[in-house]
Amino acid sequence: MKIALGQINPTVGDIDGNTERMIQDVMRARSLGAHLIVFPEMAVFGYPPKDLLLREDLIRRNVAAVERVAASCTGITAVVGFVEPDRTASGKGLLNAAALCRDGAIQSTYAKMLLPTYDVFDETRYFNAGTDVLIVPVSTSGDPLRVGLTICEDLWSDRQFDGRTVYGIDPVERTAAAGADLIVNLAASPYRAGLQQVREDIFAAQIRAQGLPLVNVNQVGGNDDLLFDGASLVMDGQGRIVARAKAFQEDFLVVDFSALESARIEPYPDRVEGIHRALVLGIRDYIRKCGFDQVVIGLSGGIDSAVTAALGVEALGANRVRGVAMPARFSSTHSVEDAQALADNLEIEFAVVPIEGAHRAMEEAVAQQFAQAAPGAPTTAEENIQARIRGNVLMSLSNKFGSLLLTTGNKSELAVGYCTLYGDMCGGLAVLSDVPKTTVYELALEINRLAGRTLIPERTITKPPSAELRENQTDQDSLPPYDILDPILEQYVENERAVGDIAKMGFDRATVERVAGMVDRSEYKRKQAAVGLKVTSRAFGTGRRMPIAAKHG
Amino acid sequence: MKIALGQINPTVGDIDGNTERMIQDVMRARSLGAHLIVFPEMAVFGYPPKDLLLREDLIRRNVAAVERVAASCTGITAVVGFVEPDRTASGKGLLNAAALCRDGAIQSTYAKMLLPTYDVFDETRYFNAGTDVLIVPVSTSGDPLRVGLTICEDLWSDRQFDGRTVYGIDPVERTAAAGADLIVNLAASPYRAGLQQVREDIFAAQIRAQGLPLVNVNQVGGNDDLLFDGASLVMDGQGRIVARAKAFQEDFLVVDFSALESARIEPYPDRVEGIHRALVLGIRDYIRKCGFDQVVIGLSGGIDSAVTAALGVEALGANRVRGVAMPARFSSTHSVEDAQALADNLEIEFAVVPIEGAHRAMEEAVAQQFAQAAPGAPTTAEENIQARIRGNVLMSLSNKFGSLLLTTGNKSELAVGYCTLYGDMCGGLAVLSDVPKTTVYELALEINRLAGRTLIPERTITKPPSAELRENQTDQDSLPPYDILDPILEQYVENERAVGDIAKMGFDRATVERVAGMVDRSEYKRKQAAVGLKVTSRAFGTGRRMPIAAKHG
Repeated sequence: MKIALGQINPTVGDIDGNTERMIQDVMRARSLGAHLIVFPEMAVFGYPPKDLLLREDLIRRNVAAVERVAASCTGITAVVGFVEPDRTASGKGLLNAAALCRDGAIQSTYAKMLLPTYDVFDETRYFNAGTDVLIVPVSTSGDPLRVGLTICEDLWSDRQFDGRTVYGIDPVERTAAAGADLIVNLAASPYRAGLQQVREDIFAAQIRAQGLPLVNVNQVGGNDDLLFDGASLVMDGQGRIVARAKAFQEDFLVVDFSALESARIEPYPDRVEGIHRALVLGIRDYIRKCGFDQVVIGLSGGIDSAVTAALGVEALGANRVRGVAMPARFSSTHSVEDAQALADNLEIEFAVVPIEGAHRAMEEAVAQQFAQAAPGAPTTAEENIQARIRGNVLMSLSNKFGSLLLTTGNKSELAVGYCTLYGDMCGGLAVLSDVPKTTVYELALEINRLAGRTLIPERTITKPPSAELRENQTDQDSLPPYDILDPILEQYVENERAVGDIAKMGFDRATVERVAGMVDRSEYKRKQAAVGLKVTSRAFGTGRRMPIAAKHG
Repeated sequence: MKIALGQINPTVGDIDGNTERMIQDVMRARSLGAHLIVFPEMAVFGYPPKDLLLREDLIRRNVAAVERVAASCTGITAVVGFVEPDRTASGKGLLNAAALCRDGAIQSTYAKMLLPTYDVFDETRYFNAGTDVLIVPVSTSGDPLRVGLTICEDLWSDRQFDGRTVYGIDPVERTAAAGADLIVNLAASPYRAGLQQVREDIFAAQIRAQGLPLVNVNQVGGNDDLLFDGASLVMDGQGRIVARAKAFQEDFLVVDFSALESARIEPYPDRVEGIHRALVLGIRDYIRKCGFDQVVIGLSGGIDSAVTAALGVEALGANRVRGVAMPARFSSTHSVEDAQALADNLEIEFAVVPIEGAHRAMEEAVAQQFAQAAPGAPTTAEENIQARIRGNVLMSLSNKFGSLLLTTGNKSELAVGYCTLYGDMCGGLAVLSDVPKTTVYELALEINRLAGRTLIPERTITKPPSAELRENQTDQDSLPPYDILDPILEQYVENERAVGDIAKMGFDRATVERVAGMVDRSEYKRKQAAVGLKVTSRAFGTGRRMPIAAKHG
């Protein structure tokens, strides 16, 4: 018995392109003697299709697409994730389904039983839960193998939420009880740092409980904020990993169950390398799937823009990245020097666009109005004008040259609102918006280490961070040190802990209160933030839905 | 039997404030001889609390708050919407519940059975569905009345989705079968134009089917994008409306069931008046609940900014609204004149901030870069620079004076991307972002009619709309006429119809394709749009979730 794992990178909504890709893999698998090929969850649509699922015409086209894949299935069986219309009398009318394709037709379908509806997932918005297990015999030279189908969350029946089990049913147990010899799992499970170990532990526990081998095929690729890491795997009945596909790239892996010991096991990267590769994939796919081929980045000489530029170069190549320094009156001499050094190291095009003239002209434009302000009115108004001129310059270059502007802000500053809306927040993709500042430093060191030379200049890494929007400003004028701020933010944002509970963990209560207040008050900025690449358990964006005109207690 | 309807306007997350408000109403109801007072769905938290529901400390505080309301209930029964921890072994651990408060304590609770998860609603993200009806006897001078509790969607068991019934159960029928004399419904049902008639028809059909009277208490007030219109009502057992509270404002209505003919029936506004009042409420509440007390608006002399300013004055008073005209080289002479005339009519503070100097300085700043662009590169870059300078001016005034910037763009232009990100899209609240351009004209006429004089200048209403970002530009250089565009957008955006289906309705196919393409390609702009006030069945924002890096077919 040979099973092929078709770990593909679909584009959301590109039904024709995704289908063509699968048909190629079906033919390749057959030519390699595979009996079965498995594709990821909802591979026809690409995951997550979101409200494209409300478009009846697209649902019809997705069914026709699976029929095309099925038509190509002679001498091989394929399992294809798609969206199946549900004929039952009540509910949403759709199922998150897997089609069993063989002898040129769809033979049967399985519908996902456990529908995640938390964090970034909205599956009960669209789908009815499946109720029936599906076991299909796949013929080999010997006895047919009874393959039990499951989809992603179906493997996670033990999932906990605040200490209670979310789902009351266990599709794997039911499938095993119905006589399966093998569990197949189609997945579209987004990456976050540390998740792979959790996945493998949970899969192993499930699989050991039933004593059945597992074939898990995960989507790969970036779809907006979500980064799918692939790393599809095969476990034997004792929960040992006997095969693993590549992480963060497409892969095609054929596993011969009669010679499991010879199967390929790709390494899974460690924490910082994983974040690094996830971000590179996220940039590359967002740019490509949006139809762009180059990016522009504002280079301040600081670490966030330096890391963003280095990741951009890895994703797209140096000739598709343009850096722009925009010195103003409060810029230190090292700002442009460090930006220039970075650009030289990365071998990217680099321009200096001084904004002093525009800054003075803007000050003149608003002078008469500002003169009417009460004494002691906030000077953030003056500071933000500069950041917004820079946003205007960068967007004008984006518009003129058809390049996408990468936003450079990190998660720590986005959390506390230490950023200017329509200023440094401008851009189409916020590369680091789920990366805490302390992790940005780790990434910088990793990037230099992997390059074997200094890409990100030493001084960029060692100098105190500053927005340089007023004389001698540093981040720590306004914020606690990042090694205090980041753990507090992790508890407040990722773990939804209350201020009192965080203080009890050993943080200064006044500091925790100040940080929580800053987070709450800057919700309005994040409402208008660019799409950000998710690498932690809770990113700002689709997985964190907060009211704005509210008291947060 | 006297029942009080406590139609309150809670602030999301303000558990203490909302609770205090309810305790006042309990005392008032008791002093007026009411036996029962009913508050809206989730009144303790304010609806929708969104991910504040993931905060365990807030859940605990919300339970303590209901206990405080219950402590105030002597000689009266109160029904209070809150969030109840669920002790069952699986699921989300929370219930969307109603507490029956009497004799100083919570006597029993009911949990909502039908959890809406579509459009702006995410209830299965947080809640388990209730399974049991609750009937509570409320003593009057005569026999106790058996009151059956339901919550909002529980009344909508007939809800259709693409022609199929969403829910397979009918809580009202079950409650009636269990022996209720009266159905009480706690609601937080957001406004949209035309919905009130749908509600009343559905309620009447449900109520007639069971032959029981209904007391429906709806939340009122704006919470971010959602505008709750109140208009709580009482129906007799034949489904006739015998009492209705005010629309779009708080109300306190005591209905004596022994003298139903004397109950107060407030009128519900017609379509345009409803949109008008909804927007005024939305502005007022967003500003207040965000902690602002004044707004600034860029006045172009056009109809969108004029209507926004007029609505702002109604919501906040003329002394809290500041208008700013920012003429540039392509501005016509009538632009500033019309803005000035509007400001005079509205009696608001008005300033002219010419941007020609800043425009020239920005052009100089980017000239060297722009000179490298290929011949024929898009001139939208030049156009957008001006719009972004205006955004910078307005935001600097917002920052300096602590006033919130109102965004003025309408739904038609936001749909097709005829707007500049970080330019005219700047602002904290997009007042008209769910109002199609053709309806903006209707609002303008309505505003002048209600005022009994010309608030919005005649020329602002009659001149051809223009962004004035290049010589002699008009909207119709780039867009189909609005009376063609708006019905196409309604089908494509609100009804999710396919291009082919829309063309079959009698629209030119090439035009429909062009419009659909513009909508799809500008998803990235809407991702970064300000909160907008929802007045149609499908607004851009939380109720429409679209992928960006995607093909839309």
